[in-house]
Amino acid sequence: METYQQSARNTVKRSPKRGHYDKETVYQILDAGYICHVGFAVNEQPYVIPTAYGRDGDTIYLHGAMGNHMLSSLEKGLPVCLTVTHLDGLVLARSAFHHSFNYRSAVLFGIACLVTADEQKDHALKVITEQILQGRWDEVRLPSKNERKITKVLAFEIEQASAKIRTGGPNDEAEDYQLPIWAGVVPLRLETGVAETDAKATMELPLPASIKSLSL
Amino acid sequence: METYQQSARNTVKRSPKRGHYDKETVYQILDAGYICHVGFAVNEQPYVIPTAYGRDGDTIYLHGAMGNHMLSSLEKGLPVCLTVTHLDGLVLARSAFHHSFNYRSAVLFGIACLVTADEQKDHALKVITEQILQGRWDEVRLPSKNERKITKVLAFEIEQASAKIRTGGPNDEAEDYQLPIWAGVVPLRLETGVAETDAKATMELPLPASIKSLSL
Repeated sequence: METYQQSARNTVKRSPKRGHYDKETVYQILDAGYICHVGFAVNEQPYVIPTAYGRDGDTIYLHGAMGNHMLSSLEKGLPVCLTVTHLDGLVLARSAFHHSFNYRSAVLFGIACLVTADEQKDHALKVITEQILQGRWDEVRLPSKNERKITKVLAFEIEQASAKIRTGGPNDEAEDYQLPIWAGVVPLRLETGVAETDAKATMELPLPASIKSLSL
Repeated sequence: METYQQSARNTVKRSPKRGHYDKETVYQILDAGYICHVGFAVNEQPYVIPTAYGRDGDTIYLHGAMGNHMLSSLEKGLPVCLTVTHLDGLVLARSAFHHSFNYRSAVLFGIACLVTADEQKDHALKVITEQILQGRWDEVRLPSKNERKITKVLAFEIEQASAKIRTGGPNDEAEDYQLPIWAGVVPLRLETGVAETDAKATMELPLPASIKSLSL
């Protein structure tokens, strides 16, 4: 099992048994996500920006407009922290103290660089589009030369990473189990609703395969 | 309408019409969230950590164990960026280029300080518990002296903030509306499932009012 190298930077200190360093676990969390939160600091001022992404091996692709402040900062080679989090439940204990969440998060460390080659840029845009909705790339009009030109693409390489996962019910103090206080978990899930056809559509079209497979 | 002071730091540069600086809009996004992503940098290395929070006016309370690395870093007075994001939909355009998400995000800038007074600490813990589930504080065993002692609480003051909101369907190029490609929005929503009673429960208890009001 391939794992990320551990150092103080990526070691889960709180509840260390919830920490994971194998690539498979980190990849699963990344592949199940829609957006990441990108952290970087300019003159010691940190920024945390939500954005789309796509993963290919240990490369995370980010994209945006040419003038995008975050991408322009990252391409200078600043250290970056990129986090993807899934919220899985409210953990409701008998004591206020033991309230928690069930979650899966992946925290990645590395550096990003500018993607300039047309072929790699197209590949990155495909990977990002497929992360939004699997199968979508083959259904849509692909980027024109000009669209490719005005889109900035960065490749962030995962140097180190960790995953942190909490599952299960509350962990109360032994004596609190006798209290007449309900405890348990309320599951949380990011659900997709019924697809809404664009009001500006000029023709009637069936739902594409990509959307149909969402509800499988 | 009260607004946050704008500077380069908190001005939405991309799609400026999606930027909002009034407190009401920022508060609504914060109050609808379960977790935030906290960004800070130590020796130029940024970290982005998902964590619980609670809001009271322009104060965001954070908490954790005494030895928590993030809290210990923040209490030194480092500049902090704290972001809350809600994902509301997949925006599926006719062109790969115009794919996007509907979302609401709030990006806050400020500095955190340690809360030491017992009364303010209890207030903060109440605010954080109520953010997890409204009405829960009055149902549970409140923190003991020792629990309060081993919990670190920080108060982050919002100095500046911005909200960014995207709603509606895709914005395709004029000529693409004639293409036989389905376009529209797939709504996304963080849904609560059916409450699962703790398997370690020692007595049968009805669901508390806090959980019943979740599905209203």
